[in-house]
Amino acid sequence: MPASPPRSDAPDAFGAYLDDCRTRILGEIRRLVPDDTRHSGRLYELMLDYPLRQGKALRPALCIATCRVLGGHVESVLRTAAVLELYHNAFLIHDDVEDGSHKRRSTPTLHQLHGVPIAVNVGDGMLALTLEPLLDNIELVGLGRALRILQTVARMARESAEGQMMELEWVRRGSWTPTDRDYVRMVYKKTSWYTFVAPIAVGAIAAGADADAVEALKRFAVPLGVAFQIQDDVLNLIGEEARYGKEIHGDLWEGKHTLALIHALRSAPPAARARALHILEKRRPPADGSVPRESLDGAIWRTQEDVEFLRALIGRTGAIEHALRCARRHADRARRSFEAVSRAWPSSVHRSFLAELVDFVVKRDW
Amino acid sequence: MPASPPRSDAPDAFGAYLDDCRTRILGEIRRLVPDDTRHSGRLYELMLDYPLRQGKALRPALCIATCRVLGGHVESVLRTAAVLELYHNAFLIHDDVEDGSHKRRSTPTLHQLHGVPIAVNVGDGMLALTLEPLLDNIELVGLGRALRILQTVARMARESAEGQMMELEWVRRGSWTPTDRDYVRMVYKKTSWYTFVAPIAVGAIAAGADADAVEALKRFAVPLGVAFQIQDDVLNLIGEEARYGKEIHGDLWEGKHTLALIHALRSAPPAARARALHILEKRRPPADGSVPRESLDGAIWRTQEDVEFLRALIGRTGAIEHALRCARRHADRARRSFEAVSRAWPSSVHRSFLAELVDFVVKRDW
Repeated sequence: MPASPPRSDAPDAFGAYLDDCRTRILGEIRRLVPDDTRHSGRLYELMLDYPLRQGKALRPALCIATCRVLGGHVESVLRTAAVLELYHNAFLIHDDVEDGSHKRRSTPTLHQLHGVPIAVNVGDGMLALTLEPLLDNIELVGLGRALRILQTVARMARESAEGQMMELEWVRRGSWTPTDRDYVRMVYKKTSWYTFVAPIAVGAIAAGADADAVEALKRFAVPLGVAFQIQDDVLNLIGEEARYGKEIHGDLWEGKHTLALIHALRSAPPAARARALHILEKRRPPADGSVPRESLDGAIWRTQEDVEFLRALIGRTGAIEHALRCARRHADRARRSFEAVSRAWPSSVHRSFLAELVDFVVKRDW
Repeated sequence: MPASPPRSDAPDAFGAYLDDCRTRILGEIRRLVPDDTRHSGRLYELMLDYPLRQGKALRPALCIATCRVLGGHVESVLRTAAVLELYHNAFLIHDDVEDGSHKRRSTPTLHQLHGVPIAVNVGDGMLALTLEPLLDNIELVGLGRALRILQTVARMARESAEGQMMELEWVRRGSWTPTDRDYVRMVYKKTSWYTFVAPIAVGAIAAGADADAVEALKRFAVPLGVAFQIQDDVLNLIGEEARYGKEIHGDLWEGKHTLALIHALRSAPPAARARALHILEKRRPPADGSVPRESLDGAIWRTQEDVEFLRALIGRTGAIEHALRCARRHADRARRSFEAVSRAWPSSVHRSFLAELVDFVVKRDW
């Protein structure tokens, strides 16, 4: 299956940096994933499906840029960056199963294409593949750095499972009591850690940064990750599907706990709030259309009308503006931390990429 | 939640050895699983659910016995054995989702109790927890052994995903062309590797065994694992549910590719074979009884009558005897390898446990 063309059509340096990292990482992932199909069926072929879709390659780019800006060689971090991208895609496969998502990067999700059992196992296979290359790191960056990278990856996997559990339990219990603070805590674990904290930390470790330097970088990474997730939630409400790559209003169909929806429920008049809560108790109808969206089943299944009601409530209560303000606050915090940490760095494309990232996170439309 | 009482009610040395290992391993697992619930909901509580059910603790016992029979200390292998048990239980959670299983160790499966999304994430959380203790092994057994253990665990996870994929693709394609040889290959990957090969190998490595010694032990572990899985399949057909712990005929409800069913289909007269294949194209009805088992839906959902037909076909074609013969052949191979490898070992409870294991695997009813 051919790789999708890179997303970033702008000829700017930021987009070019992402595209370059994406090409390198895909090459590395192809080296990590065996092409032996004799006794594993389509396991390894399906592992490449998500990575070959039109991803941003944000995590590998972060990893590479951090390593290089601190004086490390790209070779010392490429394999680790590819492993993080494998992790990311394994999480996406399992998240899509857990959230009942229909689309990922403009194409049906893996479980829609091949069923939940195969999707869960392909994710597990990808997780299994991550360990050996991280052990091989010992030859590449030495024992001490390799072990610190392994420890960071272990913490990342744990934080992700914890954050995901917070959200899944809210969904399971139909709880809409979480506050903005609870949301930020969940997103810190679910998104910040594996999208920003871990890529930046392992990039720094590969370049030889000590624990204090890594801590300083985390103060940049954590708020940036929170801003990134909030922006993602907002794009799900106002984005252009072809460019954003996920189903617009998918979060409303799935009943996800986003900052905007939490704010809307908190701010809505009692009757509208009651109707919204009733809608959120329903389930998303299956993707195969076996349940008609407008039908008597409206009592059990969320309908198009329901989703439109939630969307209008978000509009009426100024929830998008609230979310964007919150994203900007976190991005500002990230910017201040970046300025503090980057003061001594010489100018380079890597430094520019990281500096521009703060703007990208809150201004992106993809 | 209290631990279930040990299964082995016989006061024999073999059962006592298993029970002792089980107690030690549960203690170690409790140390590995955090009890912090502030920002992870019930993640860690649910991780303990399967381990606290009435398991045999076969894998940890294998690990401990192999280490000790080769002169290693129990402390040098206990943590690794607990990690393998965590892996095992994580695989069980995901397998139960993938197979649509209703019961595990006499109790509803985790996804039946808490839904598929939470079950998938609890499994992922358990996998995430395995890495840090294996890194801590460096202090316990030294760098070289710790790295070899990590490599073995990485291979184990990969073999398991490959074996699982073989089976899931047969199910997905509705393929009943696999031969006995295909079945054995699948089971080698899906069962032998993580139930026998890895526990025995890491036990040996923890005790300081070299690569050749580990290879010799694998020649014992591989056929034993195949025999174990075949016996498991047979117990699913003729076992006593309360003792066996899984749902009797669950494999037929799930349409699993067992040696007995493969043999029955191969040996059946054309009309019976056609009817069996038609039954196997249907799906298992959901556990919540939302589809009546005897209903017009018989065209889509497998019924009680369907399962009874498959069971009778297995009986008529001598498929159970065929499977038992095959199990015994593999067990005999294991016995010969054991005799070769154990010649130099002094007598001990550990040696006796391993020696008795071959009989247990093909004679067990639980």
